[in-house]
Amino acid sequence: MRVKSEKELTELVTEVLVAAGAEAPNASMVAQHLVLANLSGVDSHGVWHLMGYVKHIQEGQLVPTAQPEVIKETPASVLVSGNWTFGQVAARFTMDRAIAKAKLHDMAIAGLVQSNHIGRVGHYTEMAAAEGMISMICLGGQGNQNPTAVPFGGREAVMHTNPIAMGFPGGDGPPMFFDFATTAVAGVKVVNAQRREQELPAGCIVDKDGAPTTDPNDFFDGGGHLAFGGHKGYALMMAVEYLGRIFVGSDTFINEHRGGIYDRYSGTFMMVLKADMFQPFADFAHTADEMGKRIRQVAPAPGFDEVLVPGDIEAKAREVRRRDGIPIEDDVWETIVQAADAVGIKNI
Amino acid sequence: MRVKSEKELTELVTEVLVAAGAEAPNASMVAQHLVLANLSGVDSHGVWHLMGYVKHIQEGQLVPTAQPEVIKETPASVLVSGNWTFGQVAARFTMDRAIAKAKLHDMAIAGLVQSNHIGRVGHYTEMAAAEGMISMICLGGQGNQNPTAVPFGGREAVMHTNPIAMGFPGGDGPPMFFDFATTAVAGVKVVNAQRREQELPAGCIVDKDGAPTTDPNDFFDGGGHLAFGGHKGYALMMAVEYLGRIFVGSDTFINEHRGGIYDRYSGTFMMVLKADMFQPFADFAHTADEMGKRIRQVAPAPGFDEVLVPGDIEAKAREVRRRDGIPIEDDVWETIVQAADAVGIKNI
Repeated sequence: MRVKSEKELTELVTEVLVAAGAEAPNASMVAQHLVLANLSGVDSHGVWHLMGYVKHIQEGQLVPTAQPEVIKETPASVLVSGNWTFGQVAARFTMDRAIAKAKLHDMAIAGLVQSNHIGRVGHYTEMAAAEGMISMICLGGQGNQNPTAVPFGGREAVMHTNPIAMGFPGGDGPPMFFDFATTAVAGVKVVNAQRREQELPAGCIVDKDGAPTTDPNDFFDGGGHLAFGGHKGYALMMAVEYLGRIFVGSDTFINEHRGGIYDRYSGTFMMVLKADMFQPFADFAHTADEMGKRIRQVAPAPGFDEVLVPGDIEAKAREVRRRDGIPIEDDVWETIVQAADAVGIKNI
Repeated sequence: MRVKSEKELTELVTEVLVAAGAEAPNASMVAQHLVLANLSGVDSHGVWHLMGYVKHIQEGQLVPTAQPEVIKETPASVLVSGNWTFGQVAARFTMDRAIAKAKLHDMAIAGLVQSNHIGRVGHYTEMAAAEGMISMICLGGQGNQNPTAVPFGGREAVMHTNPIAMGFPGGDGPPMFFDFATTAVAGVKVVNAQRREQELPAGCIVDKDGAPTTDPNDFFDGGGHLAFGGHKGYALMMAVEYLGRIFVGSDTFINEHRGGIYDRYSGTFMMVLKADMFQPFADFAHTADEMGKRIRQVAPAPGFDEVLVPGDIEAKAREVRRRDGIPIEDDVWETIVQAADAVGIKNI
């Protein structure tokens, strides 16, 4: 294992992406996004993705010099094409515009199509919270060509991990936000369980006949993800599909050479609301902070050390990793070396 | 058990509410709402509530002649006071205005305060879907005076069942909608388990020390609900609290004589979006119907007869109960007889 600083890692990722053909501002934005995921303790959405992005550039799925653009807009809505640039660049552009519109009109709805992998979805809810905005983001459509998640009671995969994120600004206290797959576990956890020859917890996956299993090999042998939380999580997964793909209309913007099997059909929905729509911001923030305190004061149940507000884990990880550096596992480092090598950068 | 027609039951409930002091249009609206819940198979939100409403009127918590009014509005937002009338009357008023605003401005955000029990939350998403609108509704704040749900990893109840509902119109196919408590089970299921001396499934409740239990008596002895789906369901429960109570600002509208311990602090958030914001409605509806078909065609897993889209269960129940009548259990009928008796109606 290696330990790298935020600065070292950001510069390295930027350098590789520029060498792969990205415009410098795009490369820098993507690098900052990935490293912030690692800083937040969400290594599954961090620099581990660099190798995939380089591969997608080389295969032509991702256009590293492209810039997103507005397809259609009204005072409080905007539909954006990512033009198949980096998803982080496209999603940031979209959220920036949604925030600007909400500042003028109290609320905004945005859709993003023709985008590659947008990374950690919670990133964009934090952008909104920093501007005093409540937000909700849903990503659908990844299951159209690459179905991995079965509907409740079914044996055939139709959807994907269909993530949802929501964020709320705080006052003196930190923002409250969450960002999760509506499957019981993220795809990378199944990959890791197989690689490490471990069982998954019960209730995460089914085999090819739709029967519950804990063996990750069954997943890759025609099985699928279960939604978290039974029929309720499944309903939420469906809502994410309806908002992200069906409402945004991403099916009609596909390009058979772009986006790969994950993102060709994917669409992202964003809702942004001014937190002070119905009351002064100070009153909203006071009530939000009071709720955070009320939760954190609850005595922990057996087996727990403390009671957390969603977002606390990421905030704590950032504090520790900004101070002590970001640990990079050997197998992840190896993918970074490969990515660098693929674009002619040796001896990193 | 008795079987009653939609018409019989609606007339009876209306008559009791009018005798309890309600304006006839309010009484009729509440009766239709409750009976539609029974028709939909959601008996927990049906005519069983009549006795409670009569009691709340007699105690002064609910003002049966009051009408809701707009506190504050902009072209695309509205904050409504229910003036402590029936929650169904207040929520319907709020959703009607949100829909009207969304027709003109593509989207609307509404808040409702000073309201009693709004009943089956999915009712209002169906109103929106019937007008070609996507909607989301969150009800928070019921835990302020009557906490029943523990935060993830905690032993002390802070929130309540914090329901969320979302709805999406279809084209030729039916709308997709869901409506659920963010607790693992609704409160009435714990009450029924205790009354029938049954155990609850694992993962639904904790005892007063925060330890998992299946004994409903532990719930009433200082225990609490768990969120459905672990930390993800807990995060959603928190978001419902933030949207329904904190964003809407219901804390600042309380009246110590109204609303009772459930609804004094409660607030309701509604988001309404025109489904054709980014594309013609026919294209949205076509994709939505195609998704419904794709889901219903999935072969069922072992132990399941069919794969359903959220909302299918309610649609099927309506078909059956409109044809065969609404079954009313003896203990529920007894509460209706008591409610009628309390307002001087004998021999129903």
